[in-house]
Amino acid sequence: MELNKLLRPRKIAIIGATEKETMAGFATQMFLMQCEQRREDLYLVSRSNQEVHGKACYAKLEDLPENIDLAVICTPKTTVLSLLEEASAKGAKGAVVFASGYGETGKKEDIALEEELIRKAAELDMAVMGPNCAGFLNFVDRIFSFGFLFQARTKAGEVGVISQSGQVCMALMESDKLNFSYVISAGNSKIVSMEDYMEFLVYEKHTKVIAAYLEGIQNPVKFAAVLKIAAENKKPVVVLKAGRSEKGVRAAASHTGNLSGCDKNTDALLKKFGAIRVDDLEEMLSVCMAITTLPSLPRKNALAFVSISGGETTISADAGSQYGLDLPDFSVETTRRLKEVLPLFATAQNPMDLTGGSNGTTMENVVRIILEDPQIDMLVTGLQITKEISDVTIYDYLEGLIRYCRNGNGKPVAVIPMIESGRDSVILERLREVGVPILPPPHYGYRAVRHLLDYTEYLDTVSRRTLELYTSSQKLSKTRQALSEHESKQALKAYGIPCPQEKIAGTFREAIQIAEHMGYPVVMKIESPDILHKTEAKGVKIGIAGKEEAVQAFDEILENARVYNPKARINGILVQEMLRDGTEVIVGINNDMHLGPFVLLGLGGIFTEIFQDVVLYPAPLNQWEAGQMIDSLKGKPLFYGYRGKEALDIEALADFLVKVSRFAVDKKDSLSEMDINPVFVYPKGEGVSAADALIVYNIKA
Amino acid sequence: MELNKLLRPRKIAIIGATEKETMAGFATQMFLMQCEQRREDLYLVSRSNQEVHGKACYAKLEDLPENIDLAVICTPKTTVLSLLEEASAKGAKGAVVFASGYGETGKKEDIALEEELIRKAAELDMAVMGPNCAGFLNFVDRIFSFGFLFQARTKAGEVGVISQSGQVCMALMESDKLNFSYVISAGNSKIVSMEDYMEFLVYEKHTKVIAAYLEGIQNPVKFAAVLKIAAENKKPVVVLKAGRSEKGVRAAASHTGNLSGCDKNTDALLKKFGAIRVDDLEEMLSVCMAITTLPSLPRKNALAFVSISGGETTISADAGSQYGLDLPDFSVETTRRLKEVLPLFATAQNPMDLTGGSNGTTMENVVRIILEDPQIDMLVTGLQITKEISDVTIYDYLEGLIRYCRNGNGKPVAVIPMIESGRDSVILERLREVGVPILPPPHYGYRAVRHLLDYTEYLDTVSRRTLELYTSSQKLSKTRQALSEHESKQALKAYGIPCPQEKIAGTFREAIQIAEHMGYPVVMKIESPDILHKTEAKGVKIGIAGKEEAVQAFDEILENARVYNPKARINGILVQEMLRDGTEVIVGINNDMHLGPFVLLGLGGIFTEIFQDVVLYPAPLNQWEAGQMIDSLKGKPLFYGYRGKEALDIEALADFLVKVSRFAVDKKDSLSEMDINPVFVYPKGEGVSAADALIVYNIKA
Repeated sequence: MELNKLLRPRKIAIIGATEKETMAGFATQMFLMQCEQRREDLYLVSRSNQEVHGKACYAKLEDLPENIDLAVICTPKTTVLSLLEEASAKGAKGAVVFASGYGETGKKEDIALEEELIRKAAELDMAVMGPNCAGFLNFVDRIFSFGFLFQARTKAGEVGVISQSGQVCMALMESDKLNFSYVISAGNSKIVSMEDYMEFLVYEKHTKVIAAYLEGIQNPVKFAAVLKIAAENKKPVVVLKAGRSEKGVRAAASHTGNLSGCDKNTDALLKKFGAIRVDDLEEMLSVCMAITTLPSLPRKNALAFVSISGGETTISADAGSQYGLDLPDFSVETTRRLKEVLPLFATAQNPMDLTGGSNGTTMENVVRIILEDPQIDMLVTGLQITKEISDVTIYDYLEGLIRYCRNGNGKPVAVIPMIESGRDSVILERLREVGVPILPPPHYGYRAVRHLLDYTEYLDTVSRRTLELYTSSQKLSKTRQALSEHESKQALKAYGIPCPQEKIAGTFREAIQIAEHMGYPVVMKIESPDILHKTEAKGVKIGIAGKEEAVQAFDEILENARVYNPKARINGILVQEMLRDGTEVIVGINNDMHLGPFVLLGLGGIFTEIFQDVVLYPAPLNQWEAGQMIDSLKGKPLFYGYRGKEALDIEALADFLVKVSRFAVDKKDSLSEMDINPVFVYPKGEGVSAADALIVYNIKA
Repeated sequence: MELNKLLRPRKIAIIGATEKETMAGFATQMFLMQCEQRREDLYLVSRSNQEVHGKACYAKLEDLPENIDLAVICTPKTTVLSLLEEASAKGAKGAVVFASGYGETGKKEDIALEEELIRKAAELDMAVMGPNCAGFLNFVDRIFSFGFLFQARTKAGEVGVISQSGQVCMALMESDKLNFSYVISAGNSKIVSMEDYMEFLVYEKHTKVIAAYLEGIQNPVKFAAVLKIAAENKKPVVVLKAGRSEKGVRAAASHTGNLSGCDKNTDALLKKFGAIRVDDLEEMLSVCMAITTLPSLPRKNALAFVSISGGETTISADAGSQYGLDLPDFSVETTRRLKEVLPLFATAQNPMDLTGGSNGTTMENVVRIILEDPQIDMLVTGLQITKEISDVTIYDYLEGLIRYCRNGNGKPVAVIPMIESGRDSVILERLREVGVPILPPPHYGYRAVRHLLDYTEYLDTVSRRTLELYTSSQKLSKTRQALSEHESKQALKAYGIPCPQEKIAGTFREAIQIAEHMGYPVVMKIESPDILHKTEAKGVKIGIAGKEEAVQAFDEILENARVYNPKARINGILVQEMLRDGTEVIVGINNDMHLGPFVLLGLGGIFTEIFQDVVLYPAPLNQWEAGQMIDSLKGKPLFYGYRGKEALDIEALADFLVKVSRFAVDKKDSLSEMDINPVFVYPKGEGVSAADALIVYNIKA
């Protein structure tokens, strides 16, 4: 969608201009007071006002002397449709609709009204922001069509915000830690979608990082595609996605009418496509601040911590370790060089306490020496910079830090103070100028550093990933149809997924023939699409060693099945080779009707159920990605030769997952779920085998 | 130790008074400028200065016209010992020693000097703060003997701080969110210990909460005893204990020379005795602020969240759930009452978005109705209160909140904003007056609420716990002596710990006699204190079904043992009843030479090793505490009848743990470690049995 006429308009009309303190009033004020240079490009439209803030109003859009690009519609929802038509007649290709009371109420008539709005926008080919939105701020061109009042900062910055909540925009803008390129409060975003705005910002050259607050992923395929471009262009996308909790899902639904979907799937999708997922706004702000301030992002997990307080040094080392951050020992050479500049009581170790005998010059030298150590990739200091610093010596240390960073070697340096306590704004700005962000205290500060490391690590793997997403193209009914075990396995075999030898026997004679051909022992199971819980139905016999046992098993299984479900359609008895025991895993497909199919891998039995040792990954995936899945299980050591046991056939399991993912993509329009449980994984070189399988389809609506 | 002369002195001398900007200078200044009313009780002593800041100095302590209580020694370490003597001669019972260069350097001569200082203090019966400390601030009596300069707040408060780092004190005091009763920078605290200060504050009536930064627990028995009193008096103790990470341990050691000990043990000890353990200073500050501001602490996990922004509502619900906080649905009655006061678009649900149509009166009514719901125990709002609030409507909501809270029903109400962005200090103070803290953003704010809930839940269990701690009373050598399996089990049996039947056979004839008496099948094992890894030595045969097998096993085991370790002392062959399979757990004792014995419980095998499903608890413990240990395993569901299996004999396992803990306490002076692995746990009513056991003692030094 072409968004320039919406977000970068030349001629603008505000409909419903007023001096009253309402959204309309604030929007008008924002324009008039803060977009001075654009006053001549702005037209005010008002039925009731002749003049607003000293500027003449037009009664109707059609009275305007020239065509416009953007109509900012501040009037109630009943007026919107006709105003869109009028605006279109005046050439407008973009509109902002503040009015609420659409789909977000959940009421039938409001949803219908929203649908009508969507149709109208399409018919007129207009890019409509909203409804139920707070508008946008374009700091690059200084165009502010925003329904809340605030002090617009003088400096344009590099953070592009897209949010489904106006208050989220407000909160971010109230902070003096960030400067913005665009701030977009998209509301229900049912015409121009969140993904459209994201795409605009991915290509927008002033934007260095995108911060998105999403209540729902609206167009998953486009979402994934935009994230892919962002990753390829190394433009980080920080996502705060609502709906981690049940109550969060409900709150989001009644806010913008967006459905959050299954959060575990969302999480897996965000990870695969490299979004930086944060939990709250302060965390979002921390990450964005670090990205826009630092001269470069840390490329490996190798931090140094330097402080002037032993307590701070200790606390920071502990706090960093909570987020998995490593403080490697300094090299012998670095240690030698440090000893030359350190005061008597200080120890040349990481983390380092400069001790009281040091000063700003010590700081400057120490930071230089440490960052010249090739083993260290980032430096963090905890200097407590308060609004009114009482201990004046801290300024000396800060000067030392600033002197180094002004001509530093480009490795990132950040301040993570022990407590948040206001800031000396001069120092904040001077540090920012030399590329040093003052991050919030440890639980946010170190978390932000962790995100940066995960992000640069992700960028290194982009080329190894299959960054495609496929979602179901049709609506499915809720009627489900299960395949029998044998049918399921036939479907899997067609994809080269290894299953044991098996054949259906209609009579006990056939069963014996099959068993003898396979060789005893065998397994015998009831084969019916209507009996999914075969063990519960006493429909499974294992370790059948010979003819007599086989005959007896055949009869017993059939009889048990009849008792369990007299109406079940019976295809016969499945005679199966008896698999050797292996390490059990569970492989499945979770076909999310909104986000597409996900491949699931878990350790078998209680490991999956009690210890939740399960990973999800969006299909399709390749051998490398499958390997990553295996490696991200907590039970990973079991695959690499645990306690003297042989290493398992990881390659075969990865191949298995890849094939399952292909199946998932092909069947995305009809598959409900698929479970292969258990899969036996054998020692290296000996493969894997699907001991049981169940495929359930949805019937087309 | 009597600390009144140290912390609440009437007559004080500062030795080394100066106008220079050094610790001594700042300490002098603090006294003179901020303790105006005490000028006549203060004497300055200086060799080089006749007058400091307009006050006359004495050349020597003995020149003072009257006796003193406290000597503040600001001079270098070489002068300290003789000054202590002079101060004592002048009646001083307390001293503050700023000088560093003692035990914390790790150098032999400095450690010796510290020991001399300790001896001297004992000899003179003086309570000495430090060395290597920054002094203290007593806000209750306005006595400030502190070596760093800062703006002393006008208001005394209720937070008592004890810290081994001066900078930690400084950081906390820089925040305007807390007011203090005492702030004590205790340094190496080798004479008056951290536990002595804690004890003082536990009984100090102005102190509502104690905040302690500890680099080491110096006297664990006293530490536990003080925590017990604190719990009984419902006075929370917030502990930031250094040494969670390897690098943190190292940093602490070179800061104050304190050893952190094993962090897992420390953690278990803090939990048992009810300390609130935090990870950093901002978290400490958040918890202390909540405790000192709220009219009461939440007593159950039942929060309501109310906001004026849909985005904020959603984000907060998600953020709270990350810390396990529940937002229960409102009662039918509450929902009905809410509907009467809510605007059209708002939904009466928890979390609640008041929506734009609301105002301060809505807020007041909504908060009242919600807190009158007996199912709700605490209310959190997210109102973003920035330094200069642009959106003036927020003041209206705040007024509504304040109106309610001024005459509220005592249930706690807190603000947890979305971002940290400075505060409107007037609003901060007005909210504080009505008992509403503005906590930091979610990762700190909700974490603090979680701590409060855990604390009140702990208080409910105090009477059920054995709040005693026993530590080793003697130094042990590092020489260890293992018992054989049979010897180990004999020791356990003496405590009533259930072990299988077993007997040592010297000859194969004896072995057969024993086996026949027990009944086959039996297990046979090598019995030697020198072969601890019996399986590795091929010294175990299980499932021996009859005489011939037994004879063969006897010979083979002996032969294997000889090959494995020709020098091993062999007691014979242990013939053991063959236990039925049960659920395997591991029980052990981790005898911490500093903190005393801890009982360990883990799920067997890879659950302990890979999934780290292990819990620790300080001995002794009772049946209820043992039950708590079992319930805190991740694998807890396995004990309560998992997947249709029988529930396990939890009572018998708890009894087993209690007996092990008694053994641990009795053997605390000699035990090195004890492992019972595996213990078989059988279905309810069928008991438990120790299948193998190993006890290792330390030899007395």
